[in-house]
Amino acid sequence: MSSDTAKPWAGRFTQATDAFVEAFTASVDFDQRLAPYDIQGSLAHARMLHKVGVLTEAECKSIVDGLEAIAVEIERGDFFWSVELEDVHMNIEARLTDRIGIAGKKLHTGRSRNDQVATDVRLYLRAEIDAIVAELDRLRQALLDLAEREADTIMPGFTHLQVAQPVTFGHHMMAWFEMLCRDRERLLDCRKRVNVMPLGAAALAGTPYPLDRDYTAELLGFERPSYNSLDAVSDRDFAIEFTAAASLIAVHLSRFSEELVLWTSAQFAFIDLPDRFCTGSSIMPQKKNPDVPELVRGKTGRVVGHLMSLIVLMKSQPLAYNKDNQEDKEPLFDTVDTIKNCLRAFADMMPHVQPKRERMYEAAKQGFATATDLADYLVRKGVAFRDAHEIVGKAVRLGVESSRDLAEISLAELQAISPSIGEDVYGVLTLEGSVAARDILGGTAPNQVRAAIARARG
Amino acid sequence: MSSDTAKPWAGRFTQATDAFVEAFTASVDFDQRLAPYDIQGSLAHARMLHKVGVLTEAECKSIVDGLEAIAVEIERGDFFWSVELEDVHMNIEARLTDRIGIAGKKLHTGRSRNDQVATDVRLYLRAEIDAIVAELDRLRQALLDLAEREADTIMPGFTHLQVAQPVTFGHHMMAWFEMLCRDRERLLDCRKRVNVMPLGAAALAGTPYPLDRDYTAELLGFERPSYNSLDAVSDRDFAIEFTAAASLIAVHLSRFSEELVLWTSAQFAFIDLPDRFCTGSSIMPQKKNPDVPELVRGKTGRVVGHLMSLIVLMKSQPLAYNKDNQEDKEPLFDTVDTIKNCLRAFADMMPHVQPKRERMYEAAKQGFATATDLADYLVRKGVAFRDAHEIVGKAVRLGVESSRDLAEISLAELQAISPSIGEDVYGVLTLEGSVAARDILGGTAPNQVRAAIARARG
Amino acid sequence: MSSDTAKPWAGRFTQATDAFVEAFTASVDFDQRLAPYDIQGSLAHARMLHKVGVLTEAECKSIVDGLEAIAVEIERGDFFWSVELEDVHMNIEARLTDRIGIAGKKLHTGRSRNDQVATDVRLYLRAEIDAIVAELDRLRQALLDLAEREADTIMPGFTHLQVAQPVTFGHHMMAWFEMLCRDRERLLDCRKRVNVMPLGAAALAGTPYPLDRDYTAELLGFERPSYNSLDAVSDRDFAIEFTAAASLIAVHLSRFSEELVLWTSAQFAFIDLPDRFCTGSSIMPQKKNPDVPELVRGKTGRVVGHLMSLIVLMKSQPLAYNKDNQEDKEPLFDTVDTIKNCLRAFADMMPHVQPKRERMYEAAKQGFATATDLADYLVRKGVAFRDAHEIVGKAVRLGVESSRDLAEISLAELQAISPSIGEDVYGVLTLEGSVAARDILGGTAPNQVRAAIARARG
Amino acid sequence: MSSDTAKPWAGRFTQATDAFVEAFTASVDFDQRLAPYDIQGSLAHARMLHKVGVLTEAECKSIVDGLEAIAVEIERGDFFWSVELEDVHMNIEARLTDRIGIAGKKLHTGRSRNDQVATDVRLYLRAEIDAIVAELDRLRQALLDLAEREADTIMPGFTHLQVAQPVTFGHHMMAWFEMLCRDRERLLDCRKRVNVMPLGAAALAGTPYPLDRDYTAELLGFERPSYNSLDAVSDRDFAIEFTAAASLIAVHLSRFSEELVLWTSAQFAFIDLPDRFCTGSSIMPQKKNPDVPELVRGKTGRVVGHLMSLIVLMKSQPLAYNKDNQEDKEPLFDTVDTIKNCLRAFADMMPHVQPKRERMYEAAKQGFATATDLADYLVRKGVAFRDAHEIVGKAVRLGVESSRDLAEISLAELQAISPSIGEDVYGVLTLEGSVAARDILGGTAPNQVRAAIARARG
Repeated sequence: MSSDTAKPWAGRFTQATDAFVEAFTASVDFDQRLAPYDIQGSLAHARMLHKVGVLTEAECKSIVDGLEAIAVEIERGDFFWSVELEDVHMNIEARLTDRIGIAGKKLHTGRSRNDQVATDVRLYLRAEIDAIVAELDRLRQALLDLAEREADTIMPGFTHLQVAQPVTFGHHMMAWFEMLCRDRERLLDCRKRVNVMPLGAAALAGTPYPLDRDYTAELLGFERPSYNSLDAVSDRDFAIEFTAAASLIAVHLSRFSEELVLWTSAQFAFIDLPDRFCTGSSIMPQKKNPDVPELVRGKTGRVVGHLMSLIVLMKSQPLAYNKDNQEDKEPLFDTVDTIKNCLRAFADMMPHVQPKRERMYEAAKQGFATATDLADYLVRKGVAFRDAHEIVGKAVRLGVESSRDLAEISLAELQAISPSIGEDVYGVLTLEGSVAARDILGGTAPNQVRAAIARARG
Repeated sequence: MSSDTAKPWAGRFTQATDAFVEAFTASVDFDQRLAPYDIQGSLAHARMLHKVGVLTEAECKSIVDGLEAIAVEIERGDFFWSVELEDVHMNIEARLTDRIGIAGKKLHTGRSRNDQVATDVRLYLRAEIDAIVAELDRLRQALLDLAEREADTIMPGFTHLQVAQPVTFGHHMMAWFEMLCRDRERLLDCRKRVNVMPLGAAALAGTPYPLDRDYTAELLGFERPSYNSLDAVSDRDFAIEFTAAASLIAVHLSRFSEELVLWTSAQFAFIDLPDRFCTGSSIMPQKKNPDVPELVRGKTGRVVGHLMSLIVLMKSQPLAYNKDNQEDKEPLFDTVDTIKNCLRAFADMMPHVQPKRERMYEAAKQGFATATDLADYLVRKGVAFRDAHEIVGKAVRLGVESSRDLAEISLAELQAISPSIGEDVYGVLTLEGSVAARDILGGTAPNQVRAAIARARG
Repeated sequence: MSSDTAKPWAGRFTQATDAFVEAFTASVDFDQRLAPYDIQGSLAHARMLHKVGVLTEAECKSIVDGLEAIAVEIERGDFFWSVELEDVHMNIEARLTDRIGIAGKKLHTGRSRNDQVATDVRLYLRAEIDAIVAELDRLRQALLDLAEREADTIMPGFTHLQVAQPVTFGHHMMAWFEMLCRDRERLLDCRKRVNVMPLGAAALAGTPYPLDRDYTAELLGFERPSYNSLDAVSDRDFAIEFTAAASLIAVHLSRFSEELVLWTSAQFAFIDLPDRFCTGSSIMPQKKNPDVPELVRGKTGRVVGHLMSLIVLMKSQPLAYNKDNQEDKEPLFDTVDTIKNCLRAFADMMPHVQPKRERMYEAAKQGFATATDLADYLVRKGVAFRDAHEIVGKAVRLGVESSRDLAEISLAELQAISPSIGEDVYGVLTLEGSVAARDILGGTAPNQVRAAIARARG
Repeated sequence: MSSDTAKPWAGRFTQATDAFVEAFTASVDFDQRLAPYDIQGSLAHARMLHKVGVLTEAECKSIVDGLEAIAVEIERGDFFWSVELEDVHMNIEARLTDRIGIAGKKLHTGRSRNDQVATDVRLYLRAEIDAIVAELDRLRQALLDLAEREADTIMPGFTHLQVAQPVTFGHHMMAWFEMLCRDRERLLDCRKRVNVMPLGAAALAGTPYPLDRDYTAELLGFERPSYNSLDAVSDRDFAIEFTAAASLIAVHLSRFSEELVLWTSAQFAFIDLPDRFCTGSSIMPQKKNPDVPELVRGKTGRVVGHLMSLIVLMKSQPLAYNKDNQEDKEPLFDTVDTIKNCLRAFADMMPHVQPKRERMYEAAKQGFATATDLADYLVRKGVAFRDAHEIVGKAVRLGVESSRDLAEISLAELQAISPSIGEDVYGVLTLEGSVAARDILGGTAPNQVRAAIARARG
């Protein structure tokens, strides 16, 4: 074992690490992504060590300058990552010592890779949550604009994928908006628990050095230092909580995608997606496929899989840090990338969705969508709701059998089913009337949709 | 189809429901658990209908009296649940109409089973979250008491299940306490999103009746009515978020259980569990098995499975309500029961856990647990940390090879490894000194543990 | 602790079990379902003990008679299940000793609850696999019949939910048939690994009694006894493998359900489901909801959740039996019930699905479904495929812009796009021609569909 | 859109693909791993096209030469992968046309990317299953050798992590061997279903070209062509089934790892792992961490996550191919890599595990491991098993209270508990006697272990 490649922990060992084991257990291939956060954490740690007298001003300056130079090397792609040095932390520390000599070795005073990596991941995730929230906001904005444009556009509302009652397209868009608001709240709730600083927990028990943890936390923008060192180095709750929140975003986008795919089918034809968000087929020249929503729908599996992966990872682990935890990073990183990309794709695409208003209007007319309005009409005429429901059921059956919508059935025929029906019935069977009548907080009436948009913008 | 057993929606149908399909699609076997919440919701709905003039005072009183009588019937077990009536809502409504006649039929004005069931489940879950938080608090209290009692008790701290550094048993208990605090926060964050009222969304589009949704929400203690009717009837986020929070509790309890199982093994023998929390073997007379922690550990799978079940359920569902959603209840109910029982079992058991102080102390002495302290000693003598690490590694190797702990190696032998070591080294190698030195916020020093307990009690 | 209710393992204990713990750890509420298999296993064990001389003929007869009487009690619902007796095994054994006295106590010779429960679960699952395969076969038969009836029925084939090429409805049904064939194979492969007998492994190490394991295995229809006692009592692979196979069935049924739901929508309207497989709405009188496929689709989550539950259960468990394993039963039981019911619902429903042939034919005509045929026509005229593809793309664009299908575009217009197009082009643009041309093994041509049906029936 | 970078499907489109969408939907970054299989499939397709007369001999030769040259380019790393060309298929085809001109365009005759990618993935997975089975076999061999060496080594057998009965280390190793045998069987069962050829299904409906599918299948070593074109292009069952089988392997390795981690703890100290399979700590100089088993245990989450990912991906997808399916590759690839590496790490490590025989022997002596033998002794003396169990329980309680093992309790004391106990009792309380007595198929007696090894080698 040459001294150049010696592990920092080699003193107690009589054999060099097996080459395959070295590659198998190294994390630098994926954790190098943490480099900016590792450096950010080290800068704050160095400044704190200086404040409490562990580092001299010169040592601190030398470390800070060295780390900043390394940050530039990494950003430029000039940094050589060594698998022998295992991980991002040892790579950067070794390079620091190369550059500034003995002072570099003092940086690790009062910390361990256990609290260091936990800090890095939290800094990373905090930044990424902010980036995801920004994409969420962009998409929410797009939905508000689209909802406003289409506040009066009538489409069939579905339950069981059967036409249920007419709704407005704007109202439908606002349903998605509501889900994204909850997603945003969940991310911000999660962020509170991410934003706690492990540094100072050291390997597992705290450290005898007189660190000023509040100062480091302040420098790094953390809300507070963690309260228990054993917990601090082994806690991956924040990663699981984030991935669970991300899974809900993915579930929402999968449901939204399902609708976009349905709506672009020839059978629904409710909307048009611009060509630039679609692709074609190498064999079928007519195809224009809604690739973006399909792929977003497919990526749900990926995010949910990562959630499951992290839960299985942590199940039954005794305290404190175990090597298993190294496996927390890739699922987390890929969840972040996937959610950010999916939201971006939707935020880019939604402003360009073209509703086909006539198609939706026709579809709303064909599914007996105003049957409930007829029942409500009968209730107003003094028929008990349950009896009204049965009367309308018979009218619908007549419509189905004769391929006519309710409004196309003659008054005589309707009166044969119920004498309570009068000439004025045809008024309540219009789509516009049905929609406008649902003028209640959260209802589909256009002015309620506009009120919801105003509330959201406020 | 006799009129007695006629479905409320039979008007449009020409065939009675297939008997197997009726049983297959009915939910009353499991959703009858929602009965108290269904009645609570109906009471508020009736009062609101009276307030806005849809029901007369007499009708309202008749409905309220009828529902309260039905609540008693159900609580007493005198209620006959009919599968033909499909679900808890139709069973109660049918019984109400039996009891009070025509007025009962008016209760359903302005609502649908879609918003009704969503409201019931939220009322149920809100109450159960409160019950779970109460059990969490009982367990947190038990941990604080135990930690206080054992703030000075020394045990080995582990990383990689290898002895790492000495910690105190009280500190270790406080790590679990911290996790439960986060679990509590997550439940309360989730509760905010549970506590929103769907009633008034009706089937999917809102209702033409002039409901006062704010008043109903106030009566039911909801923070506000929901803002979008399509979302309100189809949203099951709160169930997924709750189950995710419950999964984290389960993961924590699985980890805690793993330790208790380890610690009751003959090899560790760190604690004793009272006989009344253990069971024996039908074949091996000597066995005393830690059944409670084992079973709690096993139940993690159940809770995580339910989380997965709900996510798969919702993936790709278009708006609004689909029959699939009926499958949301059993996973939710069983998650609630499981978590409540597991927390209760732990809250009952933990006050009676008996730490075996001598065993833990001996174990801490045997794993070179103060090797880090020796390294820190060398740093104080002017050795660079990395060099100190290597020196200690050699001392450990000598200890391993000669089956001695560091404190048992002679000064001469130690000085042969590093001349910087002096007679005073034996002071830093004591467990008490090591633990006391980690006197930093979150560290394992007994006074830090006591400070943490005081902070938690505050 | 009265001697009547004393646990069989109480000798070493100084405290009675805590009442909540007793209920929490008992399994009899759910494992009583194993009673017939427990008795079946005990009968074989008794006969083997007699064969090897451990039981006298009289003792064996007494045990056999006693167990058979208990089986009748259980079947009649006359059996009192006691939670204090923990599980199905102790309940039945205690009752046996009640009935026949001392000989009953000898039945447990050479076995333990660990190998006993493992045997019971395998006997149970083997029987249920056979029952599930029978339902699968009934559904496969229904699909073959439907495919035969509709071998010539033309519908649009979809990729990306966009019309791709015309296919036959019979061909489409045969796709589902193929999936079910693989499901069947997987169940039978799993059955091989279920059909191995743990009895004789005793608690974990085997037994000193001279059991004839081959004889017991033969009596119980097992293929062979297990080869390693530690593995035998702790192995739950068969449950996970079964649940994974069941998850694939559930995934297939979810996909099939998705199509049925789509096809019954007003927009597709490709099929009619009989009223008796649908339900209505309590508020919308016109609704006829495809509840069965929706619910089956929803139940996918349940089965997948159970798979996850079992995997999480087993993750990281050391050998041999741990109490965690008690949690294997409920997920397994519910998976069996769910899959059997879903298959039954489909097997009952599919023979009554009514394809709407004109709707499907019209839909196939409208999506440029024969564009690929036009490209192939051009290739036959000597145009390179890639160039042909581009030509057809232009023709489709013209069609989209002028709302005409390819066959409605005039020859002059087509020739303006490519002079290679002649009068004969209109022949290849028919749906019948397109379908018939795909006359290759596995292709959609009606005679290939008939050949596939014949192969399947063979 | 310049003609150089034109998509093969651009004819019908009026806008170029959005740049972000292009990157978001491209798969070439990960599917280039399929290149060797894509080329293998294309070679066979070309040869078949020549056989049926679609390609001339010269065209076929030109294609074959071109593809073989491209294979070399790729292997050498000289191939430029273009994101604009979307995927591995288009990249290779474009390069082929570059190299050989117009003939290259004819290769795609009678196929589509849908059946092409399905074929590629199956060829890939078939090869990888074979590679995984080879690693499994290497590990199984290592276990057989270790079991043979340690067939007489006594250790405590555990249930509930409490000492249960003595077993042999060889027997324990053979338990793991048994699990791996089942894993092997499952992989081979899965391989049968992987080994079916989709080529010829074309986009979804088959093809009008007179392909000889049996010939292509023969060239590629497939057992048969697929029977239904819709199913062939959309089926991902084989990937899910494989990942489920891989999850079971991962679960087994997680359990094995759990034991190795336990056994290397200072408390158990049952084995030594060679230094070259361990790593140390940057802060604690004494640490020697069992990184390999810990990391393997952690990687369980990853594999299980991929299983879940694929199931969620496929849930509810209608036929036939949807873009979602592109997401099948990364989980599959990573599952293959992870399982292969974990098996390799174990196969490398296990031959070098050093059992510490004295430690295990001592541990077996201390947990009342022969209590069951004492009960069996009493049964032989005529005491009913249940009574014997209670007597032994009392003896154990005496032992616990006086910190003595059973063999250390005096005869007088034992006889005070039961007069049936004689001097000869001390014979049955030895570990060797206990182990040797379990001389039954699958039992822990050394000669049974040797028989099991012989059977396995046979």
